[in-house]
Amino acid sequence: MEIQFLGTSSGTPTRSRNMTAAAVRSSGAKHWSLVDCAEGTQYRLQRAGLSPVSLRAIFITHLHGDHCYGLPGLLATAGMLNRSEALTIVAPAPLRPMIECIMAATQLELPYPLAWVAIEDLSHADVLPDLRVRATRLSHRIDCWAYSFTEAVVERHLDTGRLRAGGIASGPVWGEIQRGRNVVLPDGRELTAEDYLAPPRKPRKVIIGGDNDTPSLLADEARDADVLVHEATYTEEIRQKVGPGPQHSSAALVARFAQEAGVRNLVLTHFSPRYQDRPGNGSLSLDDIEKEAREHYQGMLALARDLDRYELGKDGVLRLAGQ
Amino acid sequence: MEIQFLGTSSGTPTRSRNMTAAAVRSSGAKHWSLVDCAEGTQYRLQRAGLSPVSLRAIFITHLHGDHCYGLPGLLATAGMLNRSEALTIVAPAPLRPMIECIMAATQLELPYPLAWVAIEDLSHADVLPDLRVRATRLSHRIDCWAYSFTEAVVERHLDTGRLRAGGIASGPVWGEIQRGRNVVLPDGRELTAEDYLAPPRKPRKVIIGGDNDTPSLLADEARDADVLVHEATYTEEIRQKVGPGPQHSSAALVARFAQEAGVRNLVLTHFSPRYQDRPGNGSLSLDDIEKEAREHYQGMLALARDLDRYELGKDGVLRLAGQ
Repeated sequence: MEIQFLGTSSGTPTRSRNMTAAAVRSSGAKHWSLVDCAEGTQYRLQRAGLSPVSLRAIFITHLHGDHCYGLPGLLATAGMLNRSEALTIVAPAPLRPMIECIMAATQLELPYPLAWVAIEDLSHADVLPDLRVRATRLSHRIDCWAYSFTEAVVERHLDTGRLRAGGIASGPVWGEIQRGRNVVLPDGRELTAEDYLAPPRKPRKVIIGGDNDTPSLLADEARDADVLVHEATYTEEIRQKVGPGPQHSSAALVARFAQEAGVRNLVLTHFSPRYQDRPGNGSLSLDDIEKEAREHYQGMLALARDLDRYELGKDGVLRLAGQ
Repeated sequence: MEIQFLGTSSGTPTRSRNMTAAAVRSSGAKHWSLVDCAEGTQYRLQRAGLSPVSLRAIFITHLHGDHCYGLPGLLATAGMLNRSEALTIVAPAPLRPMIECIMAATQLELPYPLAWVAIEDLSHADVLPDLRVRATRLSHRIDCWAYSFTEAVVERHLDTGRLRAGGIASGPVWGEIQRGRNVVLPDGRELTAEDYLAPPRKPRKVIIGGDNDTPSLLADEARDADVLVHEATYTEEIRQKVGPGPQHSSAALVARFAQEAGVRNLVLTHFSPRYQDRPGNGSLSLDDIEKEAREHYQGMLALARDLDRYELGKDGVLRLAGQ
């Protein structure tokens, strides 16, 4: 599975960071999905080489502008590229009338249908063929959600030892069993595929959260997750200074949660623009966020940067692509 | 007067060009104005060093997405920067309910008031202290306008020859006359300031058009204009191929008009993404647009690029800043 960050700043952009959006896809898949779509996301897609034509679904965590103002432009551009396939949008309910209002005022007509899915109906919807998607409600000053993406199908390996022990020689029968099909041998023996397949590995699972001041709301979801992508808008010190109004997490809050939940990979994002990429002149730096998180979390920790692409291996290890 | 281009692509962005927006201001003024606000304009403003806090007014030519989808994000960012001064928005009427719909859905509350001006009321509105603004209706497939910006106040120079000939010595009296005030001399003579001021120079005037397939609609406005900024989406050949549906201009169409109108400076913008910045592999290039325009126009011609800043001197010459 792959996650590519398209924007990692909160509220307003910085010179190096757009506002929130991230692409998710199964490794090697042509189609991909988008979680959140801040203004400028389509510009980042050009740089990432991700086409709005092969975008299968958009998942919006919440309706603050820094998570959804790029949507009308992306829809328009997909139209100009002559997209014809339906595009699924999973989002809090008020998004649909807002987009329809924008489309009417700007006379935007799309050559493809929009398939709207209310978040509450997501568990019954079959949105992606390769990934099961679930939503978990978070705590923020507007209705807000996290999405988890879990591999729907995990490849099975043959238990070759057992096949050989049973006198079943390598051949077309092995292929049938690997496909999960029961087989009747020429000698009349009936083989149940399941008996000759090694136990499946755990399906990979990634959680991408929206804005949230209570990471523990993800406790159930995180139990079997390999990766948690979560906002860490500030350090704890600044969070205390700012007060509880904005309802964001600190690095410490998220890191402690990820450590307790046993999540192996934690990627922080959605940084307040007050944190500079490079420390200097006594200004606040993203190093402060990283340092604070490391104090509470022993797993693989990363701070997302725009256009960073991560690959989650079948071994559950998250690696920054191109490194 | 200064014009800075913030986006010069039409419809969709390219790797080097955002979609339409341009900043206008009197040279040296702190406050500035924005004409159109495509998605990503606020990112360009960061690079241009133009603050949403010192933005005085926004003029929207028409409501196609590639001219206005950056507006909600810019308004939000100005809010986060604690802007308190009212922001004037001049736009076709359906923009206001659209923005209000977006603000409601995304719970965007601004710490400053929006002062909406319907384009039809612009001639009665005193939008900018330093520039008179007028709107001219264009021909496009949605209600669309051009805005002209004319210096409201032109400095006056003393007619020192006449003052000396009248025996009026250099002193405080000269200052009074320069300020346009009539003076009574100690000998009882009454001086009318106007009689001792050199004729004012022509106020500088810039026209920035929206999308338009009939440049001649600007004939009246262009008569005393120093600069015309106008879309030249394609060459004439491509315009013929595409057909009249999109209602855009070709380079030839605009250049011929500017030549006939006697406009001294012509800046083309809003280029179809099919034109590459650098020619190669037989692809269409912006050189084609430039060449076509030069065939019909003998004045100062420029093709706008993102972040290019032009200065219009008191001599009526338009110069690319930093060159």
